Amino acid sequence: MTHQPAITQLSALLGDRLVTSQADRDLHGQNESYHPTLLPDAVAYPETTQEVSEIVKICAAEGCPITPFGAGSSLEGQHLASQGGISLDMGRMNKLLAVNDEDLNAVVQPGLTRVELNEELRATGLFFPLDPGANASLGGMAATRASGTTAVRYGTMADCVLALEAVMADGTIIRTGSQARKSSTGYDLTHLLIGSEGTLGIITELTLRLHGIPEAASAATCRFESVEDAVNCVILTIQSGLPMARIELIDEAMVRGFNIYSDAGLPEKPHLFLEFHGSPAAVAEQAALFGDIAEEFGAAGFQRAEKTEDRNKLWSMRHNAHPANKALAPSKGIISTDVCVPISKLAEAIVEAQDKARDMGLSCAIVGHVGDGNYHCGLNVDTSDAEEMKRAKEFVGLLNDSALRLGGTVSGEHGIGLGKTSYMHAEHGPALTYMRAIKAAFDPKGILNPGKILPALNH
Amino acid sequence: MTHQPAITQLSALLGDRLVTSQADRDLHGQNESYHPTLLPDAVAYPETTQEVSEIVKICAAEGCPITPFGAGSSLEGQHLASQGGISLDMGRMNKLLAVNDEDLNAVVQPGLTRVELNEELRATGLFFPLDPGANASLGGMAATRASGTTAVRYGTMADCVLALEAVMADGTIIRTGSQARKSSTGYDLTHLLIGSEGTLGIITELTLRLHGIPEAASAATCRFESVEDAVNCVILTIQSGLPMARIELIDEAMVRGFNIYSDAGLPEKPHLFLEFHGSPAAVAEQAALFGDIAEEFGAAGFQRAEKTEDRNKLWSMRHNAHPANKALAPSKGIISTDVCVPISKLAEAIVEAQDKARDMGLSCAIVGHVGDGNYHCGLNVDTSDAEEMKRAKEFVGLLNDSALRLGGTVSGEHGIGLGKTSYMHAEHGPALTYMRAIKAAFDPKGILNPGKILPALNH
Repeated sequence: MTHQPAITQLSALLGDRLVTSQADRDLHGQNESYHPTLLPDAVAYPETTQEVSEIVKICAAEGCPITPFGAGSSLEGQHLASQGGISLDMGRMNKLLAVNDEDLNAVVQPGLTRVELNEELRATGLFFPLDPGANASLGGMAATRASGTTAVRYGTMADCVLALEAVMADGTIIRTGSQARKSSTGYDLTHLLIGSEGTLGIITELTLRLHGIPEAASAATCRFESVEDAVNCVILTIQSGLPMARIELIDEAMVRGFNIYSDAGLPEKPHLFLEFHGSPAAVAEQAALFGDIAEEFGAAGFQRAEKTEDRNKLWSMRHNAHPANKALAPSKGIISTDVCVPISKLAEAIVEAQDKARDMGLSCAIVGHVGDGNYHCGLNVDTSDAEEMKRAKEFVGLLNDSALRLGGTVSGEHGIGLGKTSYMHAEHGPALTYMRAIKAAFDPKGILNPGKILPALNH
Repeated sequence: MTHQPAITQLSALLGDRLVTSQADRDLHGQNESYHPTLLPDAVAYPETTQEVSEIVKICAAEGCPITPFGAGSSLEGQHLASQGGISLDMGRMNKLLAVNDEDLNAVVQPGLTRVELNEELRATGLFFPLDPGANASLGGMAATRASGTTAVRYGTMADCVLALEAVMADGTIIRTGSQARKSSTGYDLTHLLIGSEGTLGIITELTLRLHGIPEAASAATCRFESVEDAVNCVILTIQSGLPMARIELIDEAMVRGFNIYSDAGLPEKPHLFLEFHGSPAAVAEQAALFGDIAEEFGAAGFQRAEKTEDRNKLWSMRHNAHPANKALAPSKGIISTDVCVPISKLAEAIVEAQDKARDMGLSCAIVGHVGDGNYHCGLNVDTSDAEEMKRAKEFVGLLNDSALRLGGTVSGEHGIGLGKTSYMHAEHGPALTYMRAIKAAFDPKGILNPGKILPALNH
């Protein structure tokens, strides 16, 4: 083991919270997506920011890589220890430290998950709205700039974090932002750390914006004859300024998956899943306005879900898109990828993706946070079939090219990780040099999550 | 003139768009706030991004400072050439390059002002909501992370910019962000440049989020017996989730200024100025809910402004806060300063500020974007009276200390510039080291707006 000197010192620091068992290493080296398993040499379980700082100091002195690990739900390999070293499992730093209900914010440790946070908030009348589907850790969500179904209304993690505490590559502990709602005092390190995937610093505390639980919430589904109709309905809805809380596209293939996995009983047509938040009058007004727009595009089969349990059932079905996608070809794996385009280009982009998958003989199901122009393609692929894997990766490349050609980005919310570093130059051009300069300035030894985000220099 | 070699080359490049006249240098060396006049050696008027890049290359080679200049409305000396060199006046790069109405965004050059943009958008049904009062340039607003009266609803410049083009310290032209509404592909250079006050790069193009002009808008004013009552009304309004478009505090001293300068005829009590945006039904509902809350705090004298011209008159009065403040002591100057605190601490902070000014024998008028916890103190000071200036600066220091003690920030929207560099360490602590590291990596020769944001190392 090349990192034995660091591991020996970390064992002395952490005792049985530094684990080298095969089982623990396996658990931290797996992922839900298509990336090969990549094992850390050891897993560290810090309990305090001070401990994270001590761990980083040891690793910095020994040149040992550190890969932060939240809930392990990232999809582009962000939590995989691609160069070995330490997997830094933040799971024991999972406390809700404060709810400042008068200021509509909460201070949390990074290992707390979004579902746990909302359970703890239940009595307060407040909630944390972001919902990427998985029960991700809040630190991981910040590190990967996650978003999900409600971002169309509440923004992404970039919009929901007021302040951070982080441990930097030499063990220095910094605080960014403040408890105030805005500030114009210097460089925005909060936004720099959000989305940096643990490559610039390790998030050890977050101050998150909360929202009042809406007085009324109402969900609905409806179907369309074509994906173009569904997406054009979304475009007009967003352009009309309707403050949708959720507006999700489920294409015909994914509806088939929902029918198999969740016994949804839906006609195999493109669907929109919707949610409205507000006062009872506002929700009724929004639903009526949406109904008028949807009618123009031939929407049919409206089903409403007003009661909390009905809404939960609906969104649980949506959140099970991954297993539902898998149910389309149970013996195969899933390559899940996402891109994001300007909303005016969304119908064009999605139709092109469907056509391309069909032409390439790939099984592809699409779900999309379409109010943001963000969509996910889930490919059913036999990961041991080199030829099918090659075709799938070619498809992902074409999808990325298409997103960039349409003025968009190669990832709306999954991030770069290991999976998309080769597209960084195509998307960012000369700006990539400045990202590298920040990495070099913040982490000169390259110990923080090496191999992620930035392509190797010869790429 | 120490920068003659650069000026000679810039003259060759720009012809009569490189100006060294005393009048032009004076114009660019002045400010609306209390900072002493600081003259550039010359003023450059680029017309294209390529020209900005050429200018920067010459200045980089010659070690000549470059201070970007938008509309000259910054209040902390951001546009002052504190070390001489070139004032880079972006006023000729003032085109609206594109309106992407389907994607609710516009692409603009940095010299376009916010009022000019909204005039050009008039036929589209869209508008750019941010309103810092001054008719600032959009590039300057991004560079200083401006916000203003509508930020409580629409966010600050950090929330309103999708993408940037910038010229970096060696003349490299980069693009950050994309036309998509979100992205998770690498370090967030857009947010890093926003608020960097021209010290990391020169913004040469912006893609701005637009909003549909609300179907209905309604404004109102009301008064309270005390500042605590007014602010507590604001706190409860925000906590109730009312989507206020504007909610502004005018303290009793500033009301007196409005009465003198704008013949407002208002009772000399603390006032709130309000605006509601939405559908007619939503606006009516919001106004009624606000009325219920305000009643709890003893609000009286409700006056509504529904017609566009009445609303414009109201907000024009608010925007004239600076001359109204001056009208309280016409022979003196104004020191305008702002801080921002968590909204739960706002009443405490404002009452403390009023008391302190009174105790120190200073004339102080307060206006606040109170929905954000952000307020401005305008001190009437004889700038040639060293003793009064000393007291005023002491007051500003106490205000900053108080904001930090309450969990806030030493500036909500005016920025750091020259005026607040000495508070950067108190606010950011060890994080300041990482800001310095970014500056050193991006601008190793220190030619971009030197002396701004970062305190000298011996501070």
